[in-house]
Amino acid sequence: MSKIQWSQTEDQIAKQAFQTAYKRETSTLIANVRDRAGSITELEDLWYLHDLLSTKRYEIDGKYDYDSSTAVFDFAKLIKEGWLSLEDLKGLNAEILSKISALVRM
Amino acid sequence: MSKIQWSQTEDQIAKQAFQTAYKRETSTLIANVRDRAGSITELEDLWYLHDLLSTKRYEIDGKYDYDSSTAVFDFAKLIKEGWLSLEDLKGLNAEILSKISALVRM
Repeated sequence: MSKIQWSQTEDQIAKQAFQTAYKRETSTLIANVRDRAGSITELEDLWYLHDLLSTKRYEIDGKYDYDSSTAVFDFAKLIKEGWLSLEDLKGLNAEILSKISALVRM
Repeated sequence: MSKIQWSQTEDQIAKQAFQTAYKRETSTLIANVRDRAGSITELEDLWYLHDLLSTKRYEIDGKYDYDSSTAVFDFAKLIKEGWLSLEDLKGLNAEILSKISALVRM
């Protein structure tokens, strides 16, 4: 996969897509935490929120460091998770898009 | 300190005071988290909340396990922290109250 050369424009599209997914995932998480926090009345709920934040922090840490050599897999994962669609990757070369589509279908 | 005998009534007063302090500290923490969460807009703020919860969870864990042999020190600490007042301990014997007062002034 790493043999495919990314043009400068494709690199820009990829970085932009990463940024889009990052914004979507983090703003969804923030909204979720704000909602959840608003209804906390017991200490147990607070520690549940703490556990959730621990998990999410671990998951998100490093996830959005763009690396073109793994981007095909990263994009497939982000599409499966619902943070990106193939539409967001329009402009990447057809071979890359087809690899991503194949991975998404796996 | 552990040589002072606590009567059953005093044990009850002590446990009740512990419970009162626990309620005050945890409900203040919950209100604080709800307030703070409500104004989170950036991921950085979310991780700050996570750090705060990690610290508080560590601090609170075991803090309210009542043990009459250390209760004099525990009460002095809770008074210094603002979660109890000497008024909440009314009914404990004069010697205990005076030890607590002395510790609080240290």
